[in-house]
Amino acid sequence: MDRRTFLSGASIAAATVATACGAQDSQTSGPAAPAVNRRRTRQLRMVTTWPANFPGLGTAADRVAQFCNEMSGGTLDIRVYGAGEIVGAFEVFDAVSTGAADMYHAAEYYWQGKHPAFNFFTAVPLGMTATEIMAWCEFGGGQELWEELAGQFGIISFQAGNSGLQMGGWFKREINTLEDFRGLRMRIPGLGGTVLRELGGAAVALSGSEIYPALQSGTIDATEWVGPWNDLAFGFYREAPYYYGPGFHEPGSALGVGINRGVWDSLESDHQAILRAACRAANNQSLAEFAHQNAVALRVLVEDHGVELRRFSDEMWMRIAEISEQVVADVGNHDALGRRIYESYLEGRRRGREWGRISEPDYFMQRERVLGE
Amino acid sequence: MDRRTFLSGASIAAATVATACGAQDSQTSGPAAPAVNRRRTRQLRMVTTWPANFPGLGTAADRVAQFCNEMSGGTLDIRVYGAGEIVGAFEVFDAVSTGAADMYHAAEYYWQGKHPAFNFFTAVPLGMTATEIMAWCEFGGGQELWEELAGQFGIISFQAGNSGLQMGGWFKREINTLEDFRGLRMRIPGLGGTVLRELGGAAVALSGSEIYPALQSGTIDATEWVGPWNDLAFGFYREAPYYYGPGFHEPGSALGVGINRGVWDSLESDHQAILRAACRAANNQSLAEFAHQNAVALRVLVEDHGVELRRFSDEMWMRIAEISEQVVADVGNHDALGRRIYESYLEGRRRGREWGRISEPDYFMQRERVLGE
Repeated sequence: MDRRTFLSGASIAAATVATACGAQDSQTSGPAAPAVNRRRTRQLRMVTTWPANFPGLGTAADRVAQFCNEMSGGTLDIRVYGAGEIVGAFEVFDAVSTGAADMYHAAEYYWQGKHPAFNFFTAVPLGMTATEIMAWCEFGGGQELWEELAGQFGIISFQAGNSGLQMGGWFKREINTLEDFRGLRMRIPGLGGTVLRELGGAAVALSGSEIYPALQSGTIDATEWVGPWNDLAFGFYREAPYYYGPGFHEPGSALGVGINRGVWDSLESDHQAILRAACRAANNQSLAEFAHQNAVALRVLVEDHGVELRRFSDEMWMRIAEISEQVVADVGNHDALGRRIYESYLEGRRRGREWGRISEPDYFMQRERVLGE
Repeated sequence: MDRRTFLSGASIAAATVATACGAQDSQTSGPAAPAVNRRRTRQLRMVTTWPANFPGLGTAADRVAQFCNEMSGGTLDIRVYGAGEIVGAFEVFDAVSTGAADMYHAAEYYWQGKHPAFNFFTAVPLGMTATEIMAWCEFGGGQELWEELAGQFGIISFQAGNSGLQMGGWFKREINTLEDFRGLRMRIPGLGGTVLRELGGAAVALSGSEIYPALQSGTIDATEWVGPWNDLAFGFYREAPYYYGPGFHEPGSALGVGINRGVWDSLESDHQAILRAACRAANNQSLAEFAHQNAVALRVLVEDHGVELRRFSDEMWMRIAEISEQVVADVGNHDALGRRIYESYLEGRRRGREWGRISEPDYFMQRERVLGE
């Protein structure tokens, strides 16, 4: 079905529709349809902050819907709408909060205007990696705090995707010292932008489609976006040949599904279980897909397009870290709930650091050293 | 229900049972039960290589079953049996292959006697990390090769858990040079054991429950097991105070579900989708849970039990790597299919290395450096 045609129909107004076979527990007469269709069908509208079918981020939203539809035999029928199809990208939170839409797929830091602590459920500068934030949310108390925060807006939220570590960005000229950040006009939103301003740069907010023209015209000197997979598609390498990594500002950005609390509570227990597992399965696929596709795209960028990989210097990292820790502490000091979330987040990061020191990162470095090129 | 009581019943012989409401498409008369129970219920027996309810590894098996049961409203009813309840731990593969059981949860490297390439679907020395093997299987061609390999035995397999990086093990005395491996009697199975033998040590195969007494009596000088979470439970620290990490032999061990191919093909499409998503959701939870619990347990080991953390030296890593690469190449040269799997695995590891160099591991090291203690 064409999404826009569907949108124009009156059916969009109904949060749920009953099938011809009738709602569960109520209609028992008449010829038997296949048993799987006998129960009430729930149709939910998922609005997203991504363009329709957007690789990686939109893919994660599509997978949540696809998994639910397949697992429920069509009785939990989730339709995905790209940004602007029902409401604008940054209106999805209010739409779900008020019940105008049933659920959203987004990155929670977009809602920092509602409460700054939403940042902790996506990514903060010098914060947790993908596995660390998964561990914190699922087993370290993060989910409970998230439900408390989102609950203030009538929403319940679950992790449903992770981009992995994001790159530092594309630069027209090399950044060799902290001085090179002074006056730098860079597209970098959110807390990363706050850090850049503290470094003397000018953080510019541009939507995805506005970035390339701004780079081309020289309105900006640099931009970050996501990672090699998504960055390659935009062709930033043609305008800014120096690609810095790793980034400091989004070390493992979690994506989330937010569901209107009333809608969630109205779901039967098997549909709740399906939606919860679909989010976790989509999270798993997202982590794996970004890891694979980023590696594939990085090779194309370097071998086919001559991109120059660069690292921020140790001196830059030290100053970035000082600023980042202060910026994030300020975010955490908004109110009592924010402080509890911040303290729990710091505990999660501490656990990640303690275990990581003697495990995977150290293994990776030894493997690099001994295997060589 | 008590598992052993259940086992003694005649019902165990039936791979599938119909509910009182009858099979789908066949029975339409009589009073209506809740719609969700009107379809045919499938009851599957999952045998595992883990003791019942074993933390981490058994937990992953239990979650696959729990998710399926909840999502299907009980119509896909998976019962989990610990090692020895129906068949012994290492008999589960044959049981599923012949149809004596419907599915197993295990680590695929246990089947290296069937074909050495099964090692690649769990872990090999100097091999892939957890995220890397997830990326390879789901998006880098690994799943297709796995289905080809397991298909030779009438089984289809999916990732359904990951322990993350495993530690190098517990040692009664410090291991400072390669010479210290000579004559070392260590419990280390599989390919890690082969590497130890090449280093001049004596690799000993012991099941989990046999390890502690062997350490205590001095029959062995060292042992590896899994990571801090599982190792703490066994109390190895009381007999061998030096805890080496990271390990070289299992950098991110994938757990898997194997399903009898005929049983899989007989499942209706929604039940197939539920089982597939349950495996992915369990994989996600497993990765997150090991990350959290290993960090918690590591702190207990160090702060409460005075465990001494140690690293293998750079010189040891270099020699271990030389041997490991040869041991794994030998595994990959078993036959034509094995070579294709080995080559695909090496490509996956190469992708993981290229992306990792500029992303998460480098970020982790910078974060450690700038945040300090």
